[in-house]
Amino acid sequence: MTIRPIDVIQHKRDGLALTDAEIQSFVRALVERSPGNQLVTDSPTDSQTAGLLMAIFHHGLSPHELATLTAAMRTSGETFDATPLESFIIDKHSTGGVGDKTSLLIAPILAAAGLVHPTSSGTPGICVPMISGRSLGHTGGTLDKLETIPGFNTQLSLAQLLTTLKTCGAALIGQTSTLVPADRILYALRDHTGTVESPFLIAASIMSKKLAEDLDALVLDVKTGSGAFMPTYDQSKFLAELMVHTGEAAGTRTVALLTSMDQPLGRFSGNWVEVRECVDIMTQRRHPLSADLIDLSNTLAGWMLHLAGQAATPEHGATLSDSILRSGGAYTAWLNIVAAQGGDTNVFEDPAARHKPTAARTIHAPYAGYLASMDCKQAGWAVQRLGAGRDRPGDPVSAHAGIEMHAKLGDRIAANQPLITLFAADPALLDEPETMLREALQFSPAPPRLSPLIREVITLGER
Amino acid sequence: MTIRPIDVIQHKRDGLALTDAEIQSFVRALVERSPGNQLVTDSPTDSQTAGLLMAIFHHGLSPHELATLTAAMRTSGETFDATPLESFIIDKHSTGGVGDKTSLLIAPILAAAGLVHPTSSGTPGICVPMISGRSLGHTGGTLDKLETIPGFNTQLSLAQLLTTLKTCGAALIGQTSTLVPADRILYALRDHTGTVESPFLIAASIMSKKLAEDLDALVLDVKTGSGAFMPTYDQSKFLAELMVHTGEAAGTRTVALLTSMDQPLGRFSGNWVEVRECVDIMTQRRHPLSADLIDLSNTLAGWMLHLAGQAATPEHGATLSDSILRSGGAYTAWLNIVAAQGGDTNVFEDPAARHKPTAARTIHAPYAGYLASMDCKQAGWAVQRLGAGRDRPGDPVSAHAGIEMHAKLGDRIAANQPLITLFAADPALLDEPETMLREALQFSPAPPRLSPLIREVITLGER
Repeated sequence: MTIRPIDVIQHKRDGLALTDAEIQSFVRALVERSPGNQLVTDSPTDSQTAGLLMAIFHHGLSPHELATLTAAMRTSGETFDATPLESFIIDKHSTGGVGDKTSLLIAPILAAAGLVHPTSSGTPGICVPMISGRSLGHTGGTLDKLETIPGFNTQLSLAQLLTTLKTCGAALIGQTSTLVPADRILYALRDHTGTVESPFLIAASIMSKKLAEDLDALVLDVKTGSGAFMPTYDQSKFLAELMVHTGEAAGTRTVALLTSMDQPLGRFSGNWVEVRECVDIMTQRRHPLSADLIDLSNTLAGWMLHLAGQAATPEHGATLSDSILRSGGAYTAWLNIVAAQGGDTNVFEDPAARHKPTAARTIHAPYAGYLASMDCKQAGWAVQRLGAGRDRPGDPVSAHAGIEMHAKLGDRIAANQPLITLFAADPALLDEPETMLREALQFSPAPPRLSPLIREVITLGER
Repeated sequence: MTIRPIDVIQHKRDGLALTDAEIQSFVRALVERSPGNQLVTDSPTDSQTAGLLMAIFHHGLSPHELATLTAAMRTSGETFDATPLESFIIDKHSTGGVGDKTSLLIAPILAAAGLVHPTSSGTPGICVPMISGRSLGHTGGTLDKLETIPGFNTQLSLAQLLTTLKTCGAALIGQTSTLVPADRILYALRDHTGTVESPFLIAASIMSKKLAEDLDALVLDVKTGSGAFMPTYDQSKFLAELMVHTGEAAGTRTVALLTSMDQPLGRFSGNWVEVRECVDIMTQRRHPLSADLIDLSNTLAGWMLHLAGQAATPEHGATLSDSILRSGGAYTAWLNIVAAQGGDTNVFEDPAARHKPTAARTIHAPYAGYLASMDCKQAGWAVQRLGAGRDRPGDPVSAHAGIEMHAKLGDRIAANQPLITLFAADPALLDEPETMLREALQFSPAPPRLSPLIREVITLGER
């Protein structure tokens, strides 16, 4: 049967549901860009793909269409085959935040748990093939943080990923060029044709990449609040539900936590400073301002341990997670992973001393009161402008730029008390971010009402 | 001020009204495809333009946005300057039908009237710079019909157009490469990204090209019924209203007639056969089956004569038009125009004898009754398949292929009476169109209810 791209576009444009064959042939032709397979005679042009994306932006996708699109994208290139591990394969994905470094804690926590409970053939009982991204817009990127560790190689092949998982139980790597090529093509088009914000296309993009990791289970951290990509709570929840449905439709147990991103998570936002904060936590140097980070990491890891069968409930899992952090087990696993990926573990001996920004400046409280609210997205942009993020893909980022929070939302503030310290490679880079951060902060005379860190848990059916 | 294409797309995507500057800079950048003007830094890619078109498909355009888009397209290249003529400049445009050859009658009728009432400087009092198109899909094309006249040159420059108008009062030409380049770019993208059917984009496309003719007035023939592009009466009316508003906003007096396209107009559909039918009418050989064609031509020309100040009412204008046809004045003007554009007028001496199809076949009535209804679009496709139209732009068309109607809707039919004769260059080309036409015809035992030829007249405000 011949399926023409123009017909697929017109069907979606007119609000009809696309057939499986229409979605599959469009995605296949997009990647192959050549004739010669059974379903497709014409490959879609970029303009046709842009037209289809805009039609999807307006009409959305049914759960079945979304599952079909996600599956077609997932199998558009190579996929990871975790069968040889015989392990429970699980990952966590966050929709992106400021100061969100939970991956750096969760991967070692799960790796430690997996090494304690090996399979009958000796491989780790749990494996975390964590494929992460780079800083984008106002959000940080796990890869940028990891690459502040000298020698750390995030560009592993799928064969190297398998080897690392076998010995370490977790690996922290970047997207390979062979996985989910359809997403790269679609994302580049979405980015410049105004269709990035469609929850359906976001869900297909995230889930196709995560499901290509051959997962048994996936825990999603969907951000909501002033620092989240989705502008309202309802939209964050809608995205979470789309992703949970899509994961379950693919046979992967999927749970989404809606979590508050109303302020930078933890104490530091940046690159090396975030690695430092995690090492501090894993080496029992917990700072009070890291409390929300530790809480969220334990909650997410707790869900993962529960889904992996290591904890009767997610709450038991969170307790187990915290004990793995406190026992030093997570730190041992961390050193293991970093060494396996070529990183120099000596840098963790005195991580505070390694933080060498050329310029720093501290914002003080203009008057006494409570830290009431924060434009967290603007804070994220300030971190980006300090040099920790990038303007366009491929730009270098500064290892040492970033911010340190001295107070969190709801804290009682004395006049002139330090609130935020800014770090950059050049004093001239401090001015604009300082203004942005000053504008982002709101104070109140009375204690503010704050959202809980965990807003809601989305599962399909019963917990 | 810098306007980025992505921002324009996102505004329309989100249902906002675009500003004049956004529309103007997008269209200008589309044509220039280079930086260096004041408003634009980035030229839109084809994908971005496709995204904007699909967003317009979904959100539409306000009357002001449509007028601005049309004006920006109109001035995207050269425009015709009719000032030197000192005449009343008027044109007619049809949204496309089957057997619709009114242009071949109306241009000479108006030319004849214009020559009778010259301006003080001796130029024709009315000029019709009629820029027409080619066969597209199920509809015929005026240029294809004209080019069956040996030597007839439809590709005049704007300077040649001016000269022809000065001597003849009308010219029948094709789109030049310099007029409205934005429409060519946008139409090519719409055609392959599923946004052809937007009434807003149809209106902008038609009106930008018509208004580039420097018109004082324009009469639109908006088809409705089974052979029309717009699928419902309401949609045809909506398109008519958009175009009337857009024309008036540009200072051109604009009237739209909603007319029935429930069956092929007149006696013949094809190329040479349609020229023949018009010559027969202009030379007082009126065939009864041409009655609807003559009626519609006089009605449209009547409106034009009224708008040009030659008739107190459109009805008076229609009467004047018919007298110009009957007096032979239109035929004289026709010979004048054809000769001025290089055509051999000898072919009109015995036009029936010049019709030389290689193959012909007649469909007869299967039983007695009334010809009740017709799938006119399917009839148009049958004409195209016979060879009178084309599959893709640039394909040749047959001069002699087409159909002759022996009965019209509402006619009492005897069993075995001839209904339609098919003509083609090859007997093998008759089979499929015959089946298509047989399927397109519906009979009834009682007289059917038919729509009037003129359904409604759309004007802005009072007549």
